[in-house]
Amino acid sequence: MITQTAMKAALQQYLDGFNNKDHDAVISLFADNARIEDPVGGGQIIEGKEAITSFYQSSVASVEKLELAAPIRGSHGNSAALAFIINVEMEGKKVRIHCIDVMTFNDEGKIADMKAYWGQEDIQFV
Amino acid sequence: MITQTAMKAALQQYLDGFNNKDHDAVISLFADNARIEDPVGGGQIIEGKEAITSFYQSSVASVEKLELAAPIRGSHGNSAALAFIINVEMEGKKVRIHCIDVMTFNDEGKIADMKAYWGQEDIQFV
Repeated sequence: MITQTAMKAALQQYLDGFNNKDHDAVISLFADNARIEDPVGGGQIIEGKEAITSFYQSSVASVEKLELAAPIRGSHGNSAALAFIINVEMEGKKVRIHCIDVMTFNDEGKIADMKAYWGQEDIQFV
Repeated sequence: MITQTAMKAALQQYLDGFNNKDHDAVISLFADNARIEDPVGGGQIIEGKEAITSFYQSSVASVEKLELAAPIRGSHGNSAALAFIINVEMEGKKVRIHCIDVMTFNDEGKIADMKAYWGQEDIQFV
């Protein structure tokens, strides 16, 4: 099973990939058959390498900065979670989206499942 | 469906219940058939009113304080998440456990599922 240290390193690489505008670094963290729900309840599931590649190419390009809001959490299993803030433009306005992501890893240390928790009320106009 | 505001109010009541040493206030937030995994991967599932009552009676009694680490997050669905710190004694030593909880609500506005993400490395000795 993946170690807590390895999961936390992967989530830090996720943040760094966004902040360095390196979508390949972000995409490489995911399993080929990974499943993304962002936001949870939003009605859209992103599944498989092609869809994930396209999602992160566009996300990394549009996000100005991801800021960690609290230290990354692990678990006693194969999941880790992070509370962070997405700085991005939405409809021409700068916003901060207060988000918590939960990532579950497979045995190869790749992210197999990602769920992003944020709602309409977590969008702060700046 | 439960509103984001109602979910966030419930999670604030969860924190307040702990900090007021009011286990009944915490227990009342849960559905009778709720399921708790704390910590995720810990191998123990707490399920049903009796088990939840016993779990929170003992948790609320032992926790000194829950501190919110970042604003509570909602979602576009029926889940909300919070990053917080548990101040508690473990084996006679004061520790701070850095935790993220994800709660999913049922149609009656009660918590039906709770997952607590924290691992051995998220325990900080103070």
